[in-house]
Amino acid sequence: MIDWIYFFDLCGTAVFALSGALAAGRHKMDPFGVLVLASVTAIGGGSIRDALLGTTPVFWIQDHNYITVILITVILTFIFVRKPKRVPRYILPVADALGLALFTVIGVEKALNLELSGMTAVVMGLITGVGGGIIRDLLCQQVPMVLRTEIYATASIMGGICYTISLHLGAADMFALLFAMSTALVIRLAAIRWHLSLPAFDLKTPQ
Amino acid sequence: MIDWIYFFDLCGTAVFALSGALAAGRHKMDPFGVLVLASVTAIGGGSIRDALLGTTPVFWIQDHNYITVILITVILTFIFVRKPKRVPRYILPVADALGLALFTVIGVEKALNLELSGMTAVVMGLITGVGGGIIRDLLCQQVPMVLRTEIYATASIMGGICYTISLHLGAADMFALLFAMSTALVIRLAAIRWHLSLPAFDLKTPQ
Amino acid sequence: MIDWIYFFDLCGTAVFALSGALAAGRHKMDPFGVLVLASVTAIGGGSIRDALLGTTPVFWIQDHNYITVILITVILTFIFVRKPKRVPRYILPVADALGLALFTVIGVEKALNLELSGMTAVVMGLITGVGGGIIRDLLCQQVPMVLRTEIYATASIMGGICYTISLHLGAADMFALLFAMSTALVIRLAAIRWHLSLPAFDLKTPQ
Repeated sequence: MIDWIYFFDLCGTAVFALSGALAAGRHKMDPFGVLVLASVTAIGGGSIRDALLGTTPVFWIQDHNYITVILITVILTFIFVRKPKRVPRYILPVADALGLALFTVIGVEKALNLELSGMTAVVMGLITGVGGGIIRDLLCQQVPMVLRTEIYATASIMGGICYTISLHLGAADMFALLFAMSTALVIRLAAIRWHLSLPAFDLKTPQ
Repeated sequence: MIDWIYFFDLCGTAVFALSGALAAGRHKMDPFGVLVLASVTAIGGGSIRDALLGTTPVFWIQDHNYITVILITVILTFIFVRKPKRVPRYILPVADALGLALFTVIGVEKALNLELSGMTAVVMGLITGVGGGIIRDLLCQQVPMVLRTEIYATASIMGGICYTISLHLGAADMFALLFAMSTALVIRLAAIRWHLSLPAFDLKTPQ
Repeated sequence: MIDWIYFFDLCGTAVFALSGALAAGRHKMDPFGVLVLASVTAIGGGSIRDALLGTTPVFWIQDHNYITVILITVILTFIFVRKPKRVPRYILPVADALGLALFTVIGVEKALNLELSGMTAVVMGLITGVGGGIIRDLLCQQVPMVLRTEIYATASIMGGICYTISLHLGAADMFALLFAMSTALVIRLAAIRWHLSLPAFDLKTPQ
């Protein structure tokens, strides 16, 4: 079971590194700048989680595979993503959505392993899922995706709740894992595709 | 005594959560986005403090009352703050000022409990007081209040110094607490009301 | 040997504090706001490093000399930097470059002392070197230097690699230290002087 979670964790690292590298490409950064942005996007959320939990040194210091995955992803991005016109606009948000779903479950799992409560676990899933993307968007001077009206934090929270409740109800680990990731991913992709949003809390427009 | 400090801590959490929720409302965020912004505003400063001190897991992981207070505050904000015209402009800075005063004292108190020096305690008060608001303003793409010319960091530092010196001179805990909070609050409210500022360090305008 | 590293660490603190104070002066901040910006610039990178490594309380809580150096630097900046026209434009980037070189080596050294791998050490050098400047630029609402096309992260990574390899090859500590700092500094200064940049990863312009 651990092996599958570890595999998904490295997958999440790769897709977030890709999303960071693509964002860097839109800002014309040099190769090492691209590497920095890909890295903070891929390991930022998990680093904040580990620093808050006190499980230090943080995960990527203890296990070099994360940085290796980021390096390979960035190099592959350099090689294969050369023609900007062949990079469709939806690639960045879709990579981000996949990373969001994968990292949410990883974060919840790590918190539950420390025997923390279900609520804390959902919050840790949220931090792991949205943390890296927030840092990426802040550094690129863009409004963080989590702040826009489209459903985003909601997808992570729903995925986290599904995972926690599934395990609590005695579901098989693998079922809970896939169910929670699918929930978060489907919600987020649907939001991207049809521009879904919850009713906004709006203090600006006269009602 | 601990009980009063704990009570003030939860009050600070509520007013900072309110300030985050109001800021979110001005950016038309969805309910879970509002919750995220209210949370980082309310627990961001204390989380940075705890991560720097190494008192992990950070406070709100160990005690669920903080997240509960944030949830209740956000729900109440949704219910009662419906008509934007009834939200006067000064509510956000005043809530922020109250949180600044409350959290400054909480931060100083936590550092002194760890038997750190008075100077470190004042710095920890400052981090606890201004940290959450800085994250809120960064996420909303606004110039952080602490960077504007109006007196802000000064209020927190003065409050922290008052608390540390009062205790050092043997004042009763409750007196030191109320004296320091009042000092920080009055300085900050006066700065808001009369647009007070210290002479700026200005390298732009020819002198 | 430790003494020289400690001396360079305090030098780096001073030049980053200067760079933060100068950036604050361009935003007309009040004295305590200047102090806050100078401090996060000077101790931000090292604080992130220590929080990730779990070597808490972070360095400046354990040793007051860092905050003392920042205080003195800010006061000297107030006294001597009065005439804006006498502050040449290159002072801020040069101070930043010096801090980058000094802090990179400090960060690598701390990681190697914890017997972490060479790769982790280079990353820790990068975080220590660029962390404070990123926070400074984010708070000032400027595009972080590390994101611009000019060589920046590259200088830190090259310095870190030189230090790690020199020590690995058995070079004297002082030689490794000076060699690595010079490498990072020369690369960064050359980039500033001749606007050097690596070929950018550019997804915007048609190729």
